Amino acid sequence: MTPSGTTSDAGADPSARDSGAQPAWELLLPAAGAPARRRGRALQEALREAVRTGRLAAGTRLPSSRALAADLGVSRGLVTEAYEQLTAEGYLRSDRGSGTWVSGTVRTARASASPGPNAPVASPPTASGVTVDFRPGTPDLSLFPRTAWATAQRTVLAELPHHALGYPDPRGLPALRSALAALLTRRRGVVADPDRLVVCSGVAQAATLLGFVLRERGHGAVGVEDPGSPEHARLFAATGLKTVWLPLDEEGLRPAPLLAAGLRAVVVTPSHQFPSGIAWSAQRRGMLLDWARTVDGYVLEDDYDGDFRYDRAPVGALQGLDPERVVYTGSVSKSLAPGLRLGWMVLPEALVDQVVERKRTMDLGHPALDQAALAHMVRGGGYDRQLRHCQRVYRERRDALLAALEKHFPGASATGIAAGLHVIACLPARYGPAARFLAAAASAGVALRTLEEYGTARPADGAVRLVIGYAHLAPTVIEAGVRRTAEALGSR
Amino acid sequence: MTPSGTTSDAGADPSARDSGAQPAWELLLPAAGAPARRRGRALQEALREAVRTGRLAAGTRLPSSRALAADLGVSRGLVTEAYEQLTAEGYLRSDRGSGTWVSGTVRTARASASPGPNAPVASPPTASGVTVDFRPGTPDLSLFPRTAWATAQRTVLAELPHHALGYPDPRGLPALRSALAALLTRRRGVVADPDRLVVCSGVAQAATLLGFVLRERGHGAVGVEDPGSPEHARLFAATGLKTVWLPLDEEGLRPAPLLAAGLRAVVVTPSHQFPSGIAWSAQRRGMLLDWARTVDGYVLEDDYDGDFRYDRAPVGALQGLDPERVVYTGSVSKSLAPGLRLGWMVLPEALVDQVVERKRTMDLGHPALDQAALAHMVRGGGYDRQLRHCQRVYRERRDALLAALEKHFPGASATGIAAGLHVIACLPARYGPAARFLAAAASAGVALRTLEEYGTARPADGAVRLVIGYAHLAPTVIEAGVRRTAEALGSR
Repeated sequence: MTPSGTTSDAGADPSARDSGAQPAWELLLPAAGAPARRRGRALQEALREAVRTGRLAAGTRLPSSRALAADLGVSRGLVTEAYEQLTAEGYLRSDRGSGTWVSGTVRTARASASPGPNAPVASPPTASGVTVDFRPGTPDLSLFPRTAWATAQRTVLAELPHHALGYPDPRGLPALRSALAALLTRRRGVVADPDRLVVCSGVAQAATLLGFVLRERGHGAVGVEDPGSPEHARLFAATGLKTVWLPLDEEGLRPAPLLAAGLRAVVVTPSHQFPSGIAWSAQRRGMLLDWARTVDGYVLEDDYDGDFRYDRAPVGALQGLDPERVVYTGSVSKSLAPGLRLGWMVLPEALVDQVVERKRTMDLGHPALDQAALAHMVRGGGYDRQLRHCQRVYRERRDALLAALEKHFPGASATGIAAGLHVIACLPARYGPAARFLAAAASAGVALRTLEEYGTARPADGAVRLVIGYAHLAPTVIEAGVRRTAEALGSR
Repeated sequence: MTPSGTTSDAGADPSARDSGAQPAWELLLPAAGAPARRRGRALQEALREAVRTGRLAAGTRLPSSRALAADLGVSRGLVTEAYEQLTAEGYLRSDRGSGTWVSGTVRTARASASPGPNAPVASPPTASGVTVDFRPGTPDLSLFPRTAWATAQRTVLAELPHHALGYPDPRGLPALRSALAALLTRRRGVVADPDRLVVCSGVAQAATLLGFVLRERGHGAVGVEDPGSPEHARLFAATGLKTVWLPLDEEGLRPAPLLAAGLRAVVVTPSHQFPSGIAWSAQRRGMLLDWARTVDGYVLEDDYDGDFRYDRAPVGALQGLDPERVVYTGSVSKSLAPGLRLGWMVLPEALVDQVVERKRTMDLGHPALDQAALAHMVRGGGYDRQLRHCQRVYRERRDALLAALEKHFPGASATGIAAGLHVIACLPARYGPAARFLAAAASAGVALRTLEEYGTARPADGAVRLVIGYAHLAPTVIEAGVRRTAEALGSR
C-alpha cells in the first residue's frame, strides 16, 4: 500500500509515489490500529523498526505528516509528534520546508551467527546419552532449603531499614560479616575478624580479587597444586598472573619444587586436597607457612568443601595458624547452591584495603538481600541445620559408593573418603588401561573423570585412578552406575 | 590454676610446674564444663585459641594427657584426641615419648588498627548535621516494592527447576535476558537480542567489564563527558585505562575536541546527560556515531535514568541507531534499589564473547534467584507498574522543587528538568559566590553540590550552578530545604 490519492496533498510526496519500490508504510498500519492511548507510541516504534531493519532506507523521503495521517487513519498530530521524536533521536532528519527523510545515521544490527558460543558453565546433570554422571563439582541441588530461603528473604524484607537497600558496603553487610566470622571461627578454626572478612561472589571471585591485588603488588605468577583445580589457571590468567604447577605427594606440596619455583603466592586445598582428597600433614602445613614468611608471600586457602567431614573431626583451617600469611576463602556453593554466588574471604591485614577497593570497582559490593538472608539463616541456626542435613545425606551416598566399588571392582581402593563430595578410586591395572575403562563406562551411559585430567602426572603403573563425585546422586543411582560400568567392562 | 597434684602422673609434666609462669590451663576450664557432646570440640577450640593468642607460647610443653584430663575433670581420651587433632593441624607438635609442645608454626593475627578504612559507598541520608541532603544519586529507597519482591522470590523458589540453582549462565538467566530484551526494546528503543544481552552487577560492573575488554583490544584511554560522573574515571583506572575529559556544550559532546583526542571509546549519557541534564541533539548523536565508525571505536551509553521522563516522550536510546557501535547499559538501581546490584549490557556482536568471558572470570555470573525474581516481575507487569509509580512520585517532587526555587530564589532557572532524578538550578550572581552559598546552606543543615564539582570548567559569570537531587526527598522536605537555604543566605 502506498499513500493513496485520498488526501489532497498526497501528490506533494514524490518519494512515496515515485521511488518505484513500495515504501514500507504498510508496516505502520498495525500501529495505527493500536488502542488510542498506545497509538502514538506504537507508531513511533513501528517507524523506528522500519528504519532500523532497512525497510525504510537511508535517504528515503517520508510522506508529509498530513498524507501519512490520512493513509493510516490517525490524527495528523500523532504523525507530527512521531516525526519530531524520531528526528530528535537521529532516525530521521528534517529539512525545514522540504520534508522529512530517513537519516544516514542508523546502522542495522548484524544477525547473531549462532545462539551464542558460551555454553553455560554447568551442563545439566544428564548430558546426551549420560544417565549417571560421576563428574565432581556439584552438590545435590535438590537439597537447597527453598522454604527456609524464601522465609529468610521475606523476613529480611520485612525487617531491613530502607538504607540497607542502597549501595552496599563493598566489604559486605556488617551483619553477615559478623555472623560468618563467628561461624568460621566455630566450625573451621579460622581467626575471623569481621573487619577483615569480605563477602564476595564465591571462591572464583576471591581468586580473581586476590589475583588482581597480587598483580598490583608486583607478583607475576601463582603456584597451584598438581593435581589441582583446572579453573584456577583460567581465573588467574584473567588477572595477568601466570600459574605454575607444583607437585604434591601424599603429605601436601613437595617442599623442594615449591622452594625452587621462585614464587611468592600459592593456592592450596590443605584440608581435603582437590582432587586427591588427602589432608596435608602438619609438617607440610608448617613448611608452607615458613615458606610464606621467608618470601614475604601469601597462601590462598581454598576451603572448598570444609563443611563436610564424615569419620573424623575436621582438620582446622590452615589460616588459623597464621592469619597474616593466609587468605582463607569459602562459599555456600556446596552447602546451599552455586547459583547464589555467595562466598567470603578472610584477609591478612596488609591486603584488606586493596581487596576491598578491587571488589568495589568490580561490582560495588554483593547484592544486599541475599547477604541479609544468609545472615538471618546463619544467626538463627538454619545454616548449621542445613550443613548437618547435607552431611548425613552425603555420608550415606559415600558409603553407597564405597560399597558398590568393593562389590563390583574387587581390589579397588578408595582414598580421600573422610570428607568432601568426591573420592579417588584406584582400580588395579587389570581394569585398565584408562581409555578402555572410560569407553566401557561411556557405553553404559556413565560419565567419569580420571585423576590425570587434573594434573600433569602420568603414572606408569597402569592403574585406573578415578575422581568420583557422588554427592549429587542417590544411592541407588550410584550403585547402578558402578554396576553398569563393571558389566560393560566385563563384556568387552 | 596449675595441674594439681591430684593425679599420680602430674609430676611427669615439668613445664606445667617448672616454667615459673602460670600456664593457661584455666583457659580450658570453661570448655571442660561444656555439655558432654560438645566437650571435646570445646576443648580443642580453647586450646587452639590459647595457642593463637600467645597465652600458650611456642615451645611450651603441655601437661600429659592424663594430668590435664584429671585437672579438667574430663576423660583422658578427650584430651588425647584434642592433642592429636591440634597436632594434625600444626598447632602442637608431638615427640613420641617425650611429650607434646606448642609448635612454632602459629602466628597471631595483628589487631586491626581501626574498624576498617573503607566507609560504605553511600552515606546514610542524614550525615552529621545534615537534615536535608540534596546530593544526587539515590532514588527513594522506601519505594522499593518489598512485598512484590518477596512474592517474586517465593514464586521463583517454588517454580525453578533444581538445575537453575547450579552455576549460572555467565551471560545471565535466559528468562531474564528475554524479558529485559523485550522491555528495553519497548521502553527505550534498544535493539536488544537476548543473545547479546549480558546481566551484570549494575552499570559500574558494565563499565569495568567493558574497560577490561577495551584494554585487551589495545585501547589505552576512554573519553568521558565534562562535566560527567566522577565514578567513571575510578572504574576505568582499575582496568588500566586512562580517562580523558571531553567538553560538552548544550547539544552534547563538542565535535572538535572529540575528533582531536585520538580516542576510540567514549562513555556518554545522551538521553539525559549527567549531570547537566541536557538531551543530546540529533546532530550530535549522528556525529558521535560517525566518529565511532571512522575510528572503529565504541560508545558506552550509560542510560542511568532512562526510566524517568516527565513532560515529553522519552528520547530513544542512542544504541538503536547503531547496535554494532554502541554498548547500552542500564540497571534497576534507580527503579528498584541499588542494593540489588542488578543491571544489563546490550553489546555489539564483536564484543559479546570477550565481555562474557570477563564476566565469567569475575564472578561466574550473577546470582540466580534475584535474576529469576526480576524476570518474574518484568514478565508479569510488576516492573512497569513500579516504574509508573516511581515516575508519579518523582514528578511530584520535581514540581515541588521547581516551585520552591521559584518562590525562594526569584530569578533562578532550572534545566534538565524533563527527566531523571535531579535538576540543574542556575542562580544569578547575586546569590553567589558559590562558596558563600554553600556555607549558608550548610549552616541551615542543607547539603548541596555545585555543577563545577563534576567537571573541569570554572565559569566566570558568578552564577551558582547546583546539581539538586530531589527523588529521595518528600515534597515538604524539599520545600523546607530550599526555604531554609534562602533564609540562611538572607541573614548573612
